[in-house]
Amino acid sequence: MFQTFDSAGDPSVGKPRVAKLRQWLTGHRLDGFIVPRADEHQGEYVPARAARLKWLTGFSGSAGVAIVLKERAFVFVDGRYQLQVRQETDPSVFTVESLIDNPPAVWMRENIGKGARIGFDPWLHTISEVKALKASADKVGAELVPVEENPIDAIWNDQPDAPMEPVELHPNALAGELAKDKLARLAAAIGKDGATHAVLTDPSSIAWAFNIRGNDVPHTPLALGFAILAADGRHRLYMDKRKFSRTVEAYLTQLADLREPGDFESDLTALARDGAKIALDPALAAEKLRMLAADNGGSVVEAADPARIPRATKNKAEIAGSRAAHRRDGAAVARLLCWLDRQPPGSLDEIAVVTRLEESRRRTGEETQMPLRDVSFDTISGAGPNGAIMHYRVSRATSRKLNEGELFLLDSGAQYQDGTTDITRTMPVGQPSEEMRERYTLVLKGLIGISRLRFPAGTRGSEIDAIARMALWRHGLDFAHGTGHGVGSYLAVHEGPQRIARSGTEKLLEGMMLSNEPGYYKEGAYGIRLENLILVTPAEQIEGGDIAMHDFETLTLAPFDRRMIKTHMLDRDELHWLDRYHAWVLAEIGPMLDGETLAWLEKACAPFPQEEKG
Amino acid sequence: MFQTFDSAGDPSVGKPRVAKLRQWLTGHRLDGFIVPRADEHQGEYVPARAARLKWLTGFSGSAGVAIVLKERAFVFVDGRYQLQVRQETDPSVFTVESLIDNPPAVWMRENIGKGARIGFDPWLHTISEVKALKASADKVGAELVPVEENPIDAIWNDQPDAPMEPVELHPNALAGELAKDKLARLAAAIGKDGATHAVLTDPSSIAWAFNIRGNDVPHTPLALGFAILAADGRHRLYMDKRKFSRTVEAYLTQLADLREPGDFESDLTALARDGAKIALDPALAAEKLRMLAADNGGSVVEAADPARIPRATKNKAEIAGSRAAHRRDGAAVARLLCWLDRQPPGSLDEIAVVTRLEESRRRTGEETQMPLRDVSFDTISGAGPNGAIMHYRVSRATSRKLNEGELFLLDSGAQYQDGTTDITRTMPVGQPSEEMRERYTLVLKGLIGISRLRFPAGTRGSEIDAIARMALWRHGLDFAHGTGHGVGSYLAVHEGPQRIARSGTEKLLEGMMLSNEPGYYKEGAYGIRLENLILVTPAEQIEGGDIAMHDFETLTLAPFDRRMIKTHMLDRDELHWLDRYHAWVLAEIGPMLDGETLAWLEKACAPFPQEEKG
Repeated sequence: MFQTFDSAGDPSVGKPRVAKLRQWLTGHRLDGFIVPRADEHQGEYVPARAARLKWLTGFSGSAGVAIVLKERAFVFVDGRYQLQVRQETDPSVFTVESLIDNPPAVWMRENIGKGARIGFDPWLHTISEVKALKASADKVGAELVPVEENPIDAIWNDQPDAPMEPVELHPNALAGELAKDKLARLAAAIGKDGATHAVLTDPSSIAWAFNIRGNDVPHTPLALGFAILAADGRHRLYMDKRKFSRTVEAYLTQLADLREPGDFESDLTALARDGAKIALDPALAAEKLRMLAADNGGSVVEAADPARIPRATKNKAEIAGSRAAHRRDGAAVARLLCWLDRQPPGSLDEIAVVTRLEESRRRTGEETQMPLRDVSFDTISGAGPNGAIMHYRVSRATSRKLNEGELFLLDSGAQYQDGTTDITRTMPVGQPSEEMRERYTLVLKGLIGISRLRFPAGTRGSEIDAIARMALWRHGLDFAHGTGHGVGSYLAVHEGPQRIARSGTEKLLEGMMLSNEPGYYKEGAYGIRLENLILVTPAEQIEGGDIAMHDFETLTLAPFDRRMIKTHMLDRDELHWLDRYHAWVLAEIGPMLDGETLAWLEKACAPFPQEEKG
Repeated sequence: MFQTFDSAGDPSVGKPRVAKLRQWLTGHRLDGFIVPRADEHQGEYVPARAARLKWLTGFSGSAGVAIVLKERAFVFVDGRYQLQVRQETDPSVFTVESLIDNPPAVWMRENIGKGARIGFDPWLHTISEVKALKASADKVGAELVPVEENPIDAIWNDQPDAPMEPVELHPNALAGELAKDKLARLAAAIGKDGATHAVLTDPSSIAWAFNIRGNDVPHTPLALGFAILAADGRHRLYMDKRKFSRTVEAYLTQLADLREPGDFESDLTALARDGAKIALDPALAAEKLRMLAADNGGSVVEAADPARIPRATKNKAEIAGSRAAHRRDGAAVARLLCWLDRQPPGSLDEIAVVTRLEESRRRTGEETQMPLRDVSFDTISGAGPNGAIMHYRVSRATSRKLNEGELFLLDSGAQYQDGTTDITRTMPVGQPSEEMRERYTLVLKGLIGISRLRFPAGTRGSEIDAIARMALWRHGLDFAHGTGHGVGSYLAVHEGPQRIARSGTEKLLEGMMLSNEPGYYKEGAYGIRLENLILVTPAEQIEGGDIAMHDFETLTLAPFDRRMIKTHMLDRDELHWLDRYHAWVLAEIGPMLDGETLAWLEKACAPFPQEEKG
């Protein structure tokens, strides 16, 4: 299994470890210290070595920060973790705060006194974050003190080593562009930004630019490291050479100077001393890098990671790979759904479905000779009220039976070498209520609204997010997450900068992959989410139209549960889309299936007859 | 008539005046000078005295800027004025540039050399504008020089005097809140912003806060002036006392220290010397004010004009006034449309319709004892291809006959003491083409989409703009303006900050009034625009819903031309909305009409029978 069902957090760890940290603080004349969840790469997953927040507090969620003062300690988490943090941390040690309503930079204004010295590790906070924290510290007359050595690393006796997993080449046939060509594009972009160098701190950008993949963190094929790209083409890659086979090393040597991680800081310092203009992405790059550049005579150019847009706009080979991955994944999901349909209500629990789904993906991957490399995130398998927990992770302690009359929400994804998938379907267990069906249909209308949309070049994700919500809004309903996130190409399943959300300020460009996942959550009762991945297609001239338009090609292949659909709530165009989608699903994945599964799929994908409307 | 049909601009003025300006530049050791369209209040209209751009160049549009260098001169206008600027300015004197693609701050980087000294009048540019201009000047090593005396004022011999129109009180029954209560709210807001004072530079804010109206600029009942509001309640109003009757002066004396305009600069300087923290809206306030505050030891707090949101969120009395104004205006428009319907194709020109419409508004105003005070902007009356010019202003030179087979676009508004209106309808002259009807129906679908929308608290205008465009986008069509602007309460017909547009970052709050005006423009052929004013209603619990929702109440009362509507393109809900809207129009304005007009309205507002669909 690529995922476990352990209850991750242990609330008993906090007390002794916080005591040790306080000793360290006293020794270093500090009044407090900030421990974020992030590592120096700011990714969604961190290696075991960097799980400092979890080690200190017990809290195992994917976002959060702790602040330990001499007398008090606080842990900040967002809405989805409010419950979990209380199970995983000791309330006699930690007060829980909201990362959204009262984030550290705001919280500091009320809770830190004049003259206080609050330490932080400048490798673990972005430039933007530190700017905000410093502004608050200034306001109250406190001091934010960057430390040389991370105190958690100092007191964590059995801290794991940094991961040292082998790096593999990402084949050109799948990458679609030679690394040297990508690097040349990036070098030109760096010059355009008015910089001589750019530091890539995001391992996704390094993986994309060098056409390599690794295995240093869960569920995302990343090799952790840094790169300094140069406008003049003299690039440097900082990665432990023990991760390289001879072939990989020979390959990478042609693209960059291969340097040891330990050289990174001194190299950057030397560049700064030579007057380099160093581009750093303030939303991604560690404050430490800004300090190294600025304190040694270099200048800092604030500019977005130059790889972000090139990486986000997939090329033909990546798109072809994704289509293949989605056919394979669709067949695996169809097998699971067909099996699920045959199980009597009350006979399965959430974990059983996760296990069976992974088996189905493994088997289909082997059959198609493109094996399952990993799941792209811990499967969200939520029955009844667990389905209403938006980022639910099933453990043995929480696993619930799929009971009669409940809904079951299944959000999962796979990593294949040719593509990353992410799909959500919601199924009834036995007989759904009319309310469930009505709300399912409203969510489906939102998904279809995005799926059918055409839009002019330059439209931003924030401008179309409401289209997935209109039908729900009309009924006084909504969902508390964005409509869609970007998706990588055998990379992170949550990839920036593209997104369909209030905060989606990036233009939607040809080749971007996104999720389309409206939902509805009734706390304590059920959750509904429907998710397809979609691809921004080239602008196309519409007959009779004045301007070329982009639209979305749907990538995900799996039927929507017809028992849940109130067809009279769909208009002609929506129903037409649904019938066409199902016909396409059958045509694409039918040939990969046979026997009972094929028969099931044929029924699941049949057009809706006029008389069935109701 | 409240508007004229003269061809406004005269291209012959530019040559001698630019020559005089260049002499002045030489005398002041400057290499160039920037002449914006704006005055020190940054409003849409300027008094004759401040029409410096028009005086210098001949260009009479409502937005633009000229830059005069020693050898060359440039005039920057946006897309809607590209044609007009070429008719109104001398091409041997002025090169035309795009205010959008190549605005002065961008243009400077290519066109201004190192060491150049470019003058500007810091009263006429906002803080934000100057910041951008300075950044560009710095980049090329040029200097931006604020001047003490405006050179146009120095060389313009017969420059008109500042307007001195009487100020009137805006009755409490219409304002709905006493000025002293409004001022107390503003004083509290200033304190909250961390300031001791705030300068109101926008006469709309002053009119709103003091419950006064004036007549210093066309089409908007403003009295030009400044106010310095104080967190401690000691407010100052800077307005020429000749504008005040004894009653008005006695009233205003209770609210503020009445100071002469000439005292404004010295008072602000004195406050700054006393260490005042002065709030200025960087998007509205003149750079000069920032200089006065900062150069004299005060500190500047950058904060939005504190009156903007209170002014934008209309109270019960203002809403009741607006409803009454819209009934009256709807009756006047119905009379016009009924009359228009009886005129044979080819018998009328654009000016005749404008004249008749103003007569109709005057008559209806008199009948209802709430006379027409002004039109709220120059009526856009565009037949055939003139309808495709988005901000077309009809003149005797351009007035076109309303010919058979063409469309006629009529966008107009009124100022009544109880409310400001703004309505657009598009009518066929004779027999419209199927294409015209199809596109009209797509625009109508956009208008209905916004009209029917429900949305949660906190939704921003930028998030719903696409809903007015979806149907057009589907057919490869779009329109190049925002969906809606804010509207004042017997104030500016274009009022910020609320808007429905890509740039609409403000939350839509209860009581905000906006336009809802999607369109479609086929260059050289025809224009379609449909516009109603709408009001954000209080959040309301929807039956079966989880969260309370806002929606829009439509204010505008006039039928949509049924000859233009392809009902089979409307879905059930859209057609239902349209029938209900028309029934409401008839119920509200029918009682104000009789005879032929009432008969016409009854037909225009009849429900669409099933068999008419097609």
